[in-house]
Amino acid sequence: MIQQVDIAIIGAGTAGLSAFNAASKVTNSIVMLEGGIHGTTCARVGCMPSKLLIAAAESAHQMQLAPAFGIQLNAGYKVDGKAVMQRVKAERDRFVSFVLQDVDQIPTEQRLDELAHFVDANTLETTSGKKIRARNIIIATGSRPAIPAMFEAAGDRLIVNDEVFAWDDLPKSVAVFGPGVIGLEISQALSRLGVRLRLFGRGDGIGPLQDPAMKALALETFNKEFPIMAGNEVRSITRTDKGVTLTFVDNEGKEVSETFDYLLAATGRKANLDKINIEAAGLKLNERLQPAFNPETTQCINADGSPSHIFIAGDVAGFRPLLHEANDEGFIAGSNAASWPNFQPKARRTPLAVVFSEPQIALAGESLAQIQARLGEEDVVVGSMDFTRQGRARVMQQNQGLMKVYACKKTGQLLGTEIFGPRAEHLVHLLAWSIQQKLTLKEILAQPFYHPVLEEGVRTALRSAASQLKR
Amino acid sequence: MIQQVDIAIIGAGTAGLSAFNAASKVTNSIVMLEGGIHGTTCARVGCMPSKLLIAAAESAHQMQLAPAFGIQLNAGYKVDGKAVMQRVKAERDRFVSFVLQDVDQIPTEQRLDELAHFVDANTLETTSGKKIRARNIIIATGSRPAIPAMFEAAGDRLIVNDEVFAWDDLPKSVAVFGPGVIGLEISQALSRLGVRLRLFGRGDGIGPLQDPAMKALALETFNKEFPIMAGNEVRSITRTDKGVTLTFVDNEGKEVSETFDYLLAATGRKANLDKINIEAAGLKLNERLQPAFNPETTQCINADGSPSHIFIAGDVAGFRPLLHEANDEGFIAGSNAASWPNFQPKARRTPLAVVFSEPQIALAGESLAQIQARLGEEDVVVGSMDFTRQGRARVMQQNQGLMKVYACKKTGQLLGTEIFGPRAEHLVHLLAWSIQQKLTLKEILAQPFYHPVLEEGVRTALRSAASQLKR
Repeated sequence: MIQQVDIAIIGAGTAGLSAFNAASKVTNSIVMLEGGIHGTTCARVGCMPSKLLIAAAESAHQMQLAPAFGIQLNAGYKVDGKAVMQRVKAERDRFVSFVLQDVDQIPTEQRLDELAHFVDANTLETTSGKKIRARNIIIATGSRPAIPAMFEAAGDRLIVNDEVFAWDDLPKSVAVFGPGVIGLEISQALSRLGVRLRLFGRGDGIGPLQDPAMKALALETFNKEFPIMAGNEVRSITRTDKGVTLTFVDNEGKEVSETFDYLLAATGRKANLDKINIEAAGLKLNERLQPAFNPETTQCINADGSPSHIFIAGDVAGFRPLLHEANDEGFIAGSNAASWPNFQPKARRTPLAVVFSEPQIALAGESLAQIQARLGEEDVVVGSMDFTRQGRARVMQQNQGLMKVYACKKTGQLLGTEIFGPRAEHLVHLLAWSIQQKLTLKEILAQPFYHPVLEEGVRTALRSAASQLKR
Repeated sequence: MIQQVDIAIIGAGTAGLSAFNAASKVTNSIVMLEGGIHGTTCARVGCMPSKLLIAAAESAHQMQLAPAFGIQLNAGYKVDGKAVMQRVKAERDRFVSFVLQDVDQIPTEQRLDELAHFVDANTLETTSGKKIRARNIIIATGSRPAIPAMFEAAGDRLIVNDEVFAWDDLPKSVAVFGPGVIGLEISQALSRLGVRLRLFGRGDGIGPLQDPAMKALALETFNKEFPIMAGNEVRSITRTDKGVTLTFVDNEGKEVSETFDYLLAATGRKANLDKINIEAAGLKLNERLQPAFNPETTQCINADGSPSHIFIAGDVAGFRPLLHEANDEGFIAGSNAASWPNFQPKARRTPLAVVFSEPQIALAGESLAQIQARLGEEDVVVGSMDFTRQGRARVMQQNQGLMKVYACKKTGQLLGTEIFGPRAEHLVHLLAWSIQQKLTLKEILAQPFYHPVLEEGVRTALRSAASQLKR
C-alpha cells in the first residue's frame, strides 16, 4: 500500500519544521520524515551550545581584563571544566526541548521517524519499506561535518564539534583543524577556558573575512591567544598512547611534534544527500550531488532544465547555511509546495554572517570582489575605521579591530561591509538593514548616533567612504 | 574700542566648538568666548568618565556572574578604589586632551578666555571690560548641576557628579539623590564597586522610563543591587563628625537614620543663563530665563515675537541635553549664523536616549503618551517582549528586562520604543533608524535578523505589535 500525500518533507530540522508550519496553513496532507535524532543542528550542536561555551570563555577572559579596570583577584581563578560543561549541556538541553515540543505538537499521522529515500521523482521509500507518493517533496536533510580521510589516523581521538558538546569535562589539549566559523569560535573558547590549543588552517583564511588587511589583523590578534598554523605543512597524524601526535612545520620552518588529547575536525560540512538516493529524483545535480535550485522559490530544476515539483531548503541546499536562512527557505518551500503550482518568487534577505569570536567578525551585503565585478573597480569606494582609536571600545578595553564599508561611487549607495571588532553582531545589523533598504551613505549619516557608543565607529567608516564620493 | 565680528560664540563646549567649526567654513570673523575651564561637559564630567566608571563596575559585576558559568575565583576579589579612579581619570584626561587640541587649533585672535555677558542684543562685554559687537551671537553656555537648597545642610559633604570624577579613591558610602540618568548610572556603578549606596527619588521615576510596567520592573531590578527610596520622605540632612546623616522613612514606614560619607546631588541640571545677563538680549524668555527658539534653525525669538539674530545650542537650550544633539545644534547654529540671513530649517534626528545602567534603558522616537495624544488611543498598537525568555540573553546571564514598541494601527508605521534590557544601546539604534525612515512593522520584519542574537528579541516585540494591526 502506498500512502498518498500532498507534501512529503524529508528532515525535521530547522528548515523542515519551518516548511511543515508554512504548509500546514494550507493542507493537512503532509508527512514529515526524520531518520535521525530530533532537535535541530542549531540547538543540538550548533549555534546554541557554541554560544554557551563562548559565554563561559568570555567570563574567564573577563578575569584577565579585570586588573586593568582596578579589580583585583585575591588568588586568581580556575576554570571548573565540569561546571562549564554542565551549564553548556543543561542550557543546550533546554533549547533542544523547545524544538522537541514543536515536533510533539505535530500529529503522529503526519510524522514518520524513519529515513526515506527517493524511488522516483514522486515516490519515497522508508527504511522499513513504507512507500509514500507525494505531489511535492521538500528536501531538508541538513548537513554534517566533512572529515578528510587523513584525519582518520587519529582514530578514537578524532572528533567533530558535536562531540565537544557531549563532554562532561574539558580536556587538557585539542588540535583544531579548520579556521572557519566553527573552528575559530571553538578554538578561542577552549583556549580561554584553559585548554592548550593549536589551530591549523590551509592558508591565510580566518572565518569568512575577505579583506587582506583585516585577515592579517585577525590572524595576528587571535594568534596572541592561541597559536594559529596558517598554511603550515602537517607531516603526520598518529594515534599514540597519550592521544594524537601531530608532526608539522612551525612558523620558523622547523619540524615539531606535539601531542593533543583530541583532533577536532572543523574542516567544513557536507550536505546530507548521500542516503536519500537523490539520483532517482530526476533533478539536475552538480558533481557533489547538490540539486540546482532557485533561491527565491527554493524550487529544484529537473535534469531537462524544466522546473521540478521538488523543493530544497536549509543547510542541504548549500546556499546560505545559517539558521535564519534555513527558516526562510523552509517557509518559502512549505508555502510554495502547499500552493502548488501557483507561487511567486520571494526576495531573499540581505546576506548577513556573524562569527562570535572576540573581536567578532561580521559581514553583510556583497563582498568587495562581488561589487567590483559588478560595478567595475573605479566605481567603488571603500571606507575604513580602526577600532584601536574608537572611544567607547577603549573605555571597555575592547579597542581592537578594523572595519570596512563598500559603497557605489556614483550613487553613494552602501553595498557591503566587513567588520572585525567588538560587538560586531550588533553593528552589522544596522548596516545589513541599511543595505537592504538601499540607503546612501548620506542617508545613513543623517540617522541618530548616540554617544559614546561603538556605532560612532560605524559612522567614522561611513564618513571615510562618503569623503571619497564624486561631488 | 569695540571689536566688530560677524559671529560671537559664548561657550567653547561641544555645541560651541561645533558652531565654531561650521561657521569657520564661511567666515573668519568669529570670536569664541569661554569663561570656564576648557574641555566639554561630556569629556570632563559627563559621558566619558561615567562610562569609564561603569566599565570598572561591570568588570566587578562579572566576578559575581562567573561561578554560574563554571569560572571559580580561588579567594574572591577586591575593588582597588585607587586603581579604579586612576584609570577613570587617566582615560578621562586623554579624552579631554583631544578637546583641548581642538581648542588649541583655533587661532588665538578668534578666542577670548573670558566670561561674557550681554550689554544689548548685539553687544557683549567680558569680565575685563572688553566689548564685542557681533552681527550674530550664539549662546552655547551649557548647563550645571542644580542643587536644591535643602542639601546645603550636608556642607562640605555635598557633591555633584563632577566631584566623583575627581576622587583619588572610592569612598565607603554615598547617598545619591535623583534616580535620573546620571544618578542611576553612578549609583549602580558605585554600588557594584563596593560603595554602600542608597538612592533617593521623589516618586516612582527611574531614568527616562515612561511605561508603568517597565518602571516597576526597573525599580525592582535595581533595588536588588542597592536600596532605592522611591518617594520616601527625607526628614533631615545633617553634617556630622562622620559625614552626612540622613533621617528618612523606610519602605516599612519606620524612621531610620543612616550616615554616609557623601551626599551626591543628581537632581537635574540648570542652564547656564544667569551670568550672561540674558535679559539684555531682547529675547522672549520663559520663567527660568530660557530663550524660546526654533529647534530646526536654533534661532531665538525676540520678545516681540520676531525672529532674532541670536542662536542657542547645546545643553543651555534645554531641548535635548545630549552630546549628539549638542553637536547638531552647534552645527546648525554655526552654519546659520555664518550664512545669515539666508538659511533653511534642518530636520532634527529621531529622538534617542540611552542610560548605561545594566540592564540598560533606551528610548527612541515618540513616547506612548505623545503618540496617543496625536493619533488617539485606539489607533496605537503596543508590542512587548520579555527578556527573561530571550535565548541569547539567557546564554549570557543577562535575561532581565522588558521592551515595548509603539506603532500606528492604521499604517503599521513604527513610532517609538522603550527598552529596559541587555545591550539596549545597540538595539535602540536599529529602531531609532527605522523610525526615522518611517518604516512599517512589516518592512522592519523583512530585514535580516541573525541567530542567536538579542535583535531576535526586538523581532519578537515587533511581531507582537504586528499581530495587532488591522488586516
